[in-house]
Amino acid sequence: MHSFEFYNPTRVIFGRGTVQQVGPAVAREGAHKVLLIAGGGSIRENGVYQAVTQSLSVSGINVVEAWGVRPNPELALAQQLVQIAREQQVDSVLAVGGGSVIDTAKCVAAGVYVDNLWSCFEKRCPIDKALPVFVVLTISASGSEMDPSAVLTESDQHRKWSISSPVLYPRFAIVDPSVQTSLPWRQTVNGAIGVLSHIMATYLVGSFEETTLALGEGLMRTVIKMVDQLQADHADYGARANLAWAATLAMNGLSSAGIEDSDWSARSIESAMSALHPEVAHGAGMAVILPAWMTYQRENNPGQFQRWARTVWGAGTVEEGITAMKTAFQRWGAPSTLGDLGIAAGELRDIAFNALSEGPLGKLRILTARDVVELLKPVL
Amino acid sequence: MHSFEFYNPTRVIFGRGTVQQVGPAVAREGAHKVLLIAGGGSIRENGVYQAVTQSLSVSGINVVEAWGVRPNPELALAQQLVQIAREQQVDSVLAVGGGSVIDTAKCVAAGVYVDNLWSCFEKRCPIDKALPVFVVLTISASGSEMDPSAVLTESDQHRKWSISSPVLYPRFAIVDPSVQTSLPWRQTVNGAIGVLSHIMATYLVGSFEETTLALGEGLMRTVIKMVDQLQADHADYGARANLAWAATLAMNGLSSAGIEDSDWSARSIESAMSALHPEVAHGAGMAVILPAWMTYQRENNPGQFQRWARTVWGAGTVEEGITAMKTAFQRWGAPSTLGDLGIAAGELRDIAFNALSEGPLGKLRILTARDVVELLKPVL
Repeated sequence: MHSFEFYNPTRVIFGRGTVQQVGPAVAREGAHKVLLIAGGGSIRENGVYQAVTQSLSVSGINVVEAWGVRPNPELALAQQLVQIAREQQVDSVLAVGGGSVIDTAKCVAAGVYVDNLWSCFEKRCPIDKALPVFVVLTISASGSEMDPSAVLTESDQHRKWSISSPVLYPRFAIVDPSVQTSLPWRQTVNGAIGVLSHIMATYLVGSFEETTLALGEGLMRTVIKMVDQLQADHADYGARANLAWAATLAMNGLSSAGIEDSDWSARSIESAMSALHPEVAHGAGMAVILPAWMTYQRENNPGQFQRWARTVWGAGTVEEGITAMKTAFQRWGAPSTLGDLGIAAGELRDIAFNALSEGPLGKLRILTARDVVELLKPVL
Repeated sequence: MHSFEFYNPTRVIFGRGTVQQVGPAVAREGAHKVLLIAGGGSIRENGVYQAVTQSLSVSGINVVEAWGVRPNPELALAQQLVQIAREQQVDSVLAVGGGSVIDTAKCVAAGVYVDNLWSCFEKRCPIDKALPVFVVLTISASGSEMDPSAVLTESDQHRKWSISSPVLYPRFAIVDPSVQTSLPWRQTVNGAIGVLSHIMATYLVGSFEETTLALGEGLMRTVIKMVDQLQADHADYGARANLAWAATLAMNGLSSAGIEDSDWSARSIESAMSALHPEVAHGAGMAVILPAWMTYQRENNPGQFQRWARTVWGAGTVEEGITAMKTAFQRWGAPSTLGDLGIAAGELRDIAFNALSEGPLGKLRILTARDVVELLKPVL
């Protein structure tokens, strides 16, 4: 057990119908004028937009709306929204959406206090101040609703980078699982696979952090069980709710407490890929990369890989565990090859170049560009 | 999964040597003069007192010391300390100790803002303001270092009651497992049994809160495994650390999230008993009461009791699970009968009276005074 600090001040307001609490929650935080950031319009179809704006209106909160955040959100849009936030003099930012919307909102919240937002991603500018960030979550996947980080893509050079600061913890996050009932099945699955990959990024580097590993195993088993239940009955609120809460907990610091390191190289490879193919959803990319990455990495920290196979999948060997995971992903209808994602052999070198452009890749072992290509070949 | 709010802003500073961070941590919170509350003096023997006062001194923090908190802490002492806090005009309270010291510190922090502290316990006075509470933990047991509650005993009428308020969350809690290496084995065991009982108070009332139940199971299995490891090697830092982190997480809201109710009647019976016998440590009392209480309650919510037996103890039946738990407690050297605690058959009626004096007892089912007596008879 290594030393750590655990600090997570986000207030999670969880349950059916909690979307209607957004107005009072914003008012309780002392905000008066919010920049409401949203995606492509699905929140108009599932009733969330109407519930949010009505609740804000009743609580006397002024609202400036900003739409158009897409998956793999872009720096350019965040920069535009910073301008709007300044011009409109909002005192807070309300994300109504999933990880892309929340991450954009965090970047806008920080961006109003800096000259050049991208310089923060380049670690040339500390983030010590931000507008308060509020969240109404519409898809459980990223865990961004209860974490202090944000990822943006800088399109010119295909860089998908991240920032993190305690001031970016959302003040509150409303997680109403019932609004996720209308999600396309594909998005539910992609979200769940993303959640598993988040936990595994630290879990597989662990060794003797028994408490944290036990929590991670509990979360992984729960995610798998709940997706299976949801596949049998898309309307199962209990399964949806437990999946949502597990997704939030997967990124809030619990599943990494005391584990000295983490290995986000699978995610970095996925980011490198989706920076080139913005149409690839994170979870879909991870469905292909995660089993390939595990197969390539299984001899590093092998005891932990074996523990994962045994406790999460009831498997006797690591190979059987990976096969069980692939079988689950396929059962859920996730893609299993790069071809399924529309990515061809000729692109592997670009993906590798991109994955390594930020610096060394991996902790279990340092992956070279050649490693990235070799790792991906079996899933072409 | 029922609706819930999860909010826990305590910063946990965890790891070997973190006691020395107390001065900077207090300074970061903007405090200048702390009331340092402590117990009987064991922190002088294990070096914690020296490390704390030195760190505070280096950070320029003024310190007023208040010693003498005992297990099952008393209202009278808290009231005296409120006077000292007012006279000395401290701006914060620093608990250096275990649950009794922390609970006393919380009561002092709230007490400076009310006319009559006990009226808060009687729910006649809301707690909406308190001095900042800081913690240096010396024994993992109560979970009070990351929760918003406190328990005191009012001696005249043998009432052991509680308060709770978000303003009582410690601002930070330093959890340095290495300072617990010198604890008597008995205290380690009592703490661990208390932790198990905390988790079970909500777990056994649960049903379909898969995420929360999986976390609870992970914590319970970890506690059991770590106590066994510590019994084999009292100096095992990893086991000590994982036990400490599990103890903190057991009361921070995670193991109850989404479970509609909880059943603290076993603890209430223990409190009723230790209000009459202040020499009985909470965990020692629970070692006797918990198996008896489970045996009496096992037909209420039986599916959940079965799940507990299977997942925590690998047992085929509830009875086998309870037997496995009793066996573990005995293996660890905990008391197994009321006689071991110095409590005689003639006292059962007083315990029952006391347990029911606050109102109805229990949720799995409402326990009558007769139930309490019947429940305890088999463990006389």
